[in-house]
Amino acid sequence: MKKIILIGAGNVAQHLAPALSAQGYLIQAVFSRQQEKAELLCKKIPQAKAQNHLDFGVYEADLLILAVSDDALGEVAQNLIAPLDSLIVHTSGTQPLSVLSSLRQAKGVFYPLQTFSTGKKVDFKEVPFCIEAEEANHEADLIKMAKTLSSKVYRVNSVQRQSLHLAAVFANNFSNHIFSIAEEILQEADLPFDLLKPLLAETVAKALDLGPTPSQTGPARRQDKKVIDKHLSLLENKPAWKEIYKVLSELIQEKYS
Amino acid sequence: MKKIILIGAGNVAQHLAPALSAQGYLIQAVFSRQQEKAELLCKKIPQAKAQNHLDFGVYEADLLILAVSDDALGEVAQNLIAPLDSLIVHTSGTQPLSVLSSLRQAKGVFYPLQTFSTGKKVDFKEVPFCIEAEEANHEADLIKMAKTLSSKVYRVNSVQRQSLHLAAVFANNFSNHIFSIAEEILQEADLPFDLLKPLLAETVAKALDLGPTPSQTGPARRQDKKVIDKHLSLLENKPAWKEIYKVLSELIQEKYS
Repeated sequence: MKKIILIGAGNVAQHLAPALSAQGYLIQAVFSRQQEKAELLCKKIPQAKAQNHLDFGVYEADLLILAVSDDALGEVAQNLIAPLDSLIVHTSGTQPLSVLSSLRQAKGVFYPLQTFSTGKKVDFKEVPFCIEAEEANHEADLIKMAKTLSSKVYRVNSVQRQSLHLAAVFANNFSNHIFSIAEEILQEADLPFDLLKPLLAETVAKALDLGPTPSQTGPARRQDKKVIDKHLSLLENKPAWKEIYKVLSELIQEKYS
Repeated sequence: MKKIILIGAGNVAQHLAPALSAQGYLIQAVFSRQQEKAELLCKKIPQAKAQNHLDFGVYEADLLILAVSDDALGEVAQNLIAPLDSLIVHTSGTQPLSVLSSLRQAKGVFYPLQTFSTGKKVDFKEVPFCIEAEEANHEADLIKMAKTLSSKVYRVNSVQRQSLHLAAVFANNFSNHIFSIAEEILQEADLPFDLLKPLLAETVAKALDLGPTPSQTGPARRQDKKVIDKHLSLLENKPAWKEIYKVLSELIQEKYS
């Protein structure tokens, strides 16, 4: 499994394709409805051709990677006319393997679990890859490919991946918005976010080192109802923040009671 | 201002006293109702005497540091009979300067903003110190002392410190519990927490580097109602987690609409 066609030129494709190419995989073509995006990506990959319509006639790819948005995945799969002997994988954390069920080819999932941002380089060595395939030999091929990029490769089935994505929304999206709330509270008190940065860094260092359960501190952990009530009264004009404060404090108080 | 008496031998005292001693401050005595705790701490500080009752007769301290629990602070201040020419500060993030108002001496606050754990050494160089004092010369003295320990020294008044502590509860306590929820979701899917560690590390690295507002990603940021509804349905049996998911997603959707 060495010849690859990439469908999609978004964030995941932008990071994945050059990394696979650097490992000796031959990216034959990049398809995108936005030709200029495909061309931009192909500049970073030797031999790859940018295409804005799906025509596999001239290629003999072993592997098709569908790196399109979660919403588009079902529709792209439905309209895909591809060689019958190729393996087709998607890269989505939210979609089950069965989103590809309209395809007669062998199917799998090749999901890198990381938050990709345009312009910020990702070190794939530390990115967990979650692999799923219908057949054992394809799973082995995908695991082998993932291991050329990363030391963290996991077998994760569609049901597990659904939970994993939900957990990632908490761990990344929600903790980040919690940081935003902290930043806004500081802004309103005319204090710089810099004040909290060492605490943030230590919070995550501790959670990574000891795990989040033994790392918990604070008024709710200490069952300190006086401080909790004072904080709730400070949030009187922010009903949504107050609700978050209340629910999280109750959960912490319960967990450590 | 060189001679210091410490009242309290808890987490803050355990970290602060040896650090100040190493900077040339003379810790004359450590008072604690638990004599053995004071003795344990004094072993780490040359010349300091462990005491379990408050008697200032033999000392001539310039500075008294009240490093006792937030709850005990008012009571300790009320019962404190100390030299009239000494400066008395507390180290609490939750209590205003006025908690010391029963004292006739000059008063201030010397608050190191970090999460202290027994046994884990803290590098004070990166710890923000929040300083408040009634008089400018005492403020200057406290700032000078803080600067021997840390490069991050801020003037923070009592009203600001209240907001700062609330923001710290979000940034540390609540984000940590959000990590706990993510860990539990993974456990129930039979997946290791290790899977999420690189994402956690990257989440905070991005928030520290770019700030949390431009770092936000995820279904709520993309106004992806389909994924949000799916996640809510996965949380049907966890009403408190579902409520957190709902409120945070609504806040993110609003912020980026």
